[in-house]
Amino acid sequence: MGNCLVLQTDFGLEDGAVSAMYGVAHTVNPTIRVENLTHDIPPYDIWVASYRLYQTVKYWPQGTVFVSVVDPGVGSNRRSIVCKTRSGHYIITPDNGSITHIMHYEGIEEIRGIDEVKSRLPHSEESHTFHGRDIYAYNGARLAVGEITFEELGALLPAESIKALPLVEAEKNGSILTGSIDVLDVRFGSLWSNIPSSYLKDVGVEPGDSLQVTIYHQGNKVYQNILLFAKSFADVSIGEPLVYINSLVNVGVAVNQDSFSKLYHIGTGIDWSLQVRKAPKVIFED
Amino acid sequence: MGNCLVLQTDFGLEDGAVSAMYGVAHTVNPTIRVENLTHDIPPYDIWVASYRLYQTVKYWPQGTVFVSVVDPGVGSNRRSIVCKTRSGHYIITPDNGSITHIMHYEGIEEIRGIDEVKSRLPHSEESHTFHGRDIYAYNGARLAVGEITFEELGALLPAESIKALPLVEAEKNGSILTGSIDVLDVRFGSLWSNIPSSYLKDVGVEPGDSLQVTIYHQGNKVYQNILLFAKSFADVSIGEPLVYINSLVNVGVAVNQDSFSKLYHIGTGIDWSLQVRKAPKVIFED
Amino acid sequence: MGNCLVLQTDFGLEDGAVSAMYGVAHTVNPTIRVENLTHDIPPYDIWVASYRLYQTVKYWPQGTVFVSVVDPGVGSNRRSIVCKTRSGHYIITPDNGSITHIMHYEGIEEIRGIDEVKSRLPHSEESHTFHGRDIYAYNGARLAVGEITFEELGALLPAESIKALPLVEAEKNGSILTGSIDVLDVRFGSLWSNIPSSYLKDVGVEPGDSLQVTIYHQGNKVYQNILLFAKSFADVSIGEPLVYINSLVNVGVAVNQDSFSKLYHIGTGIDWSLQVRKAPKVIFED
Repeated sequence: MGNCLVLQTDFGLEDGAVSAMYGVAHTVNPTIRVENLTHDIPPYDIWVASYRLYQTVKYWPQGTVFVSVVDPGVGSNRRSIVCKTRSGHYIITPDNGSITHIMHYEGIEEIRGIDEVKSRLPHSEESHTFHGRDIYAYNGARLAVGEITFEELGALLPAESIKALPLVEAEKNGSILTGSIDVLDVRFGSLWSNIPSSYLKDVGVEPGDSLQVTIYHQGNKVYQNILLFAKSFADVSIGEPLVYINSLVNVGVAVNQDSFSKLYHIGTGIDWSLQVRKAPKVIFED
Repeated sequence: MGNCLVLQTDFGLEDGAVSAMYGVAHTVNPTIRVENLTHDIPPYDIWVASYRLYQTVKYWPQGTVFVSVVDPGVGSNRRSIVCKTRSGHYIITPDNGSITHIMHYEGIEEIRGIDEVKSRLPHSEESHTFHGRDIYAYNGARLAVGEITFEELGALLPAESIKALPLVEAEKNGSILTGSIDVLDVRFGSLWSNIPSSYLKDVGVEPGDSLQVTIYHQGNKVYQNILLFAKSFADVSIGEPLVYINSLVNVGVAVNQDSFSKLYHIGTGIDWSLQVRKAPKVIFED
Repeated sequence: MGNCLVLQTDFGLEDGAVSAMYGVAHTVNPTIRVENLTHDIPPYDIWVASYRLYQTVKYWPQGTVFVSVVDPGVGSNRRSIVCKTRSGHYIITPDNGSITHIMHYEGIEEIRGIDEVKSRLPHSEESHTFHGRDIYAYNGARLAVGEITFEELGALLPAESIKALPLVEAEKNGSILTGSIDVLDVRFGSLWSNIPSSYLKDVGVEPGDSLQVTIYHQGNKVYQNILLFAKSFADVSIGEPLVYINSLVNVGVAVNQDSFSKLYHIGTGIDWSLQVRKAPKVIFED
């Protein structure tokens, strides 16, 4: 039994596109196991695709093959690549920035270019707009079941030739912590920064402390308030905001049972930054 | 080969949360088979989570392990439990009412408390807000593949210590049947009551009869009409309401190819009740 | 190991309906592999269900069993059928037009009627409104794992007795190509016609040529413009329309990173037709 193939796209599940990818994988080998990361990446949003890989890949077994197809340049001369992460996972994707976060936070061992002429679904030459099916699912399946090796997929590419999106590093200036607001917890409206939990410890912040939270958009202050640093959402009343440690062990802000993002009109990306510092102790009344 | 692990959450499929749960399960054992109940439970809606388990569990093979994570109290001191149903299925979930319907309508054989310190994904101690991944998927996978037994998951809990949401029983007063409107058939807008089909038989109602249907919200009448008791939606014209027997063999009300819930502004839960009685025969013209 | 069972419905994934179908399939045989085509067919839209089968079936291995349940007539006297396609796939569905495109474009080898009394989920006799679970998933699973043969599912039906929706053929009149706008690429808003790519070649059109595109609704002209016939979306600027060859190797129209359908209010179905002809060469400026 081979490894799992895990698919991510911005295709949605409303039509037959993702199922055709599954079908191609099962045609490569009927015993293959195919699973999903998500197919609801906002259309063309390479940043979010990159983040979702970073959020998820490490929880899968080593050897798992990820295929990520958010591909506004499909059919153009952008390259198709396969990479092996330092954690022992494979990712097949267009070379358009989709492995930005994995490259930066987890590390890549090797990257190879996929030959789109030689390595594609037989008889798919006339189709130029569905590489998700004809190139990515096809090669992902072959790699997952061991029909082709990582090395056979293509020639080595230098890491510095790989496209990466700009990232902003989290910073610790004295007792002030700053980071970018990287992504939205879609269903619950919480906002995830790239400030690691360890930074809070470094400056002596503990659950139960009050924090002054400031949010900037393109350098302009758009939100400021004193929030409880809570261990769980249930530590504050319904409707109250909080600072918490998210499931990637980074700093997040949320509202218990409501959407921080919608209530305060806060977006995500490197234009949005979160600043956190210890505030004078505030007594939260019951 | 072990049993299936079936996941239910209110996380949606837009981000990496559910995929991380799948990954954890596959890391426990790469041969595991994971499937979904639904991930679109309305956020924090424990009642609907409980109903969807009741609607679905019995159609899966005995031994199937269900993990249901609608968990507004994640990280608080609410307990994590695993139960064995009288039908031979397992459910792992927070102790917050998520097994209300199963407990009442199907019956529970045994309930155990899960030790959240001992039985959790290795190295996940710093994360307090994603028990779906760190505790529920992890232990669900171990139980499904037989890496741990039901008994080993934790100590017995008395049934009367388990949290249950209030239910309203269906009633038969002479020829008048009353029940709560428990849930919405989301895609089609039909409303499902807890009045069993057998009650209609008991009072001599047969397909083709006309029924007087009254709906109350918090005791106030909000809808009344004479409806055909139809065997199938196609027995009435498009746009016409009907009474029918739903897939759980309870009484439902619907509009053929439209939404009863939206057209008449009818909600669900124990505040909403449905009353049905035989009406004088009405001739439906073609 | 048997063949895959692939499910398509208009049930959505918000409640327990699809999971109950999965459960029934796993109860038939716990080793079965069940996958999805889509569950987001617009409610009652048999045309789209038929198109999605046509779009997807051929990418799955021979022997795959498809179950398609878009079934406004559930519980009425419409028949349940199983067909074997010329490509070696099986489809189980109500006889309501759901195999229109497959029948026309791929060809059917044999069609049989399913006995809804004999071949149904045991103890499901009282449920008349969920044949997806009680008849289709149940029989699909039995066929996929080899518990019953195609022949045993029911008696042969004459092809001419099978319900088909009206189709409009693509036409080539001199250098003018006309076809129907069959379906929407839901996520990206592109429109797919039934004009084969080969027709463009026949009239000497090549990538880089300019085409005059006219769209008619019920015979009335609703759109006309000169568009580039591009090999990939990236050949035009963001926001610009184009003609391209879609993943079924038919002619489509799109807007790079926007929705052609929404921008120009274009729908789908046989009332909508697309006309394409070579235009005088236009220079597209950078």
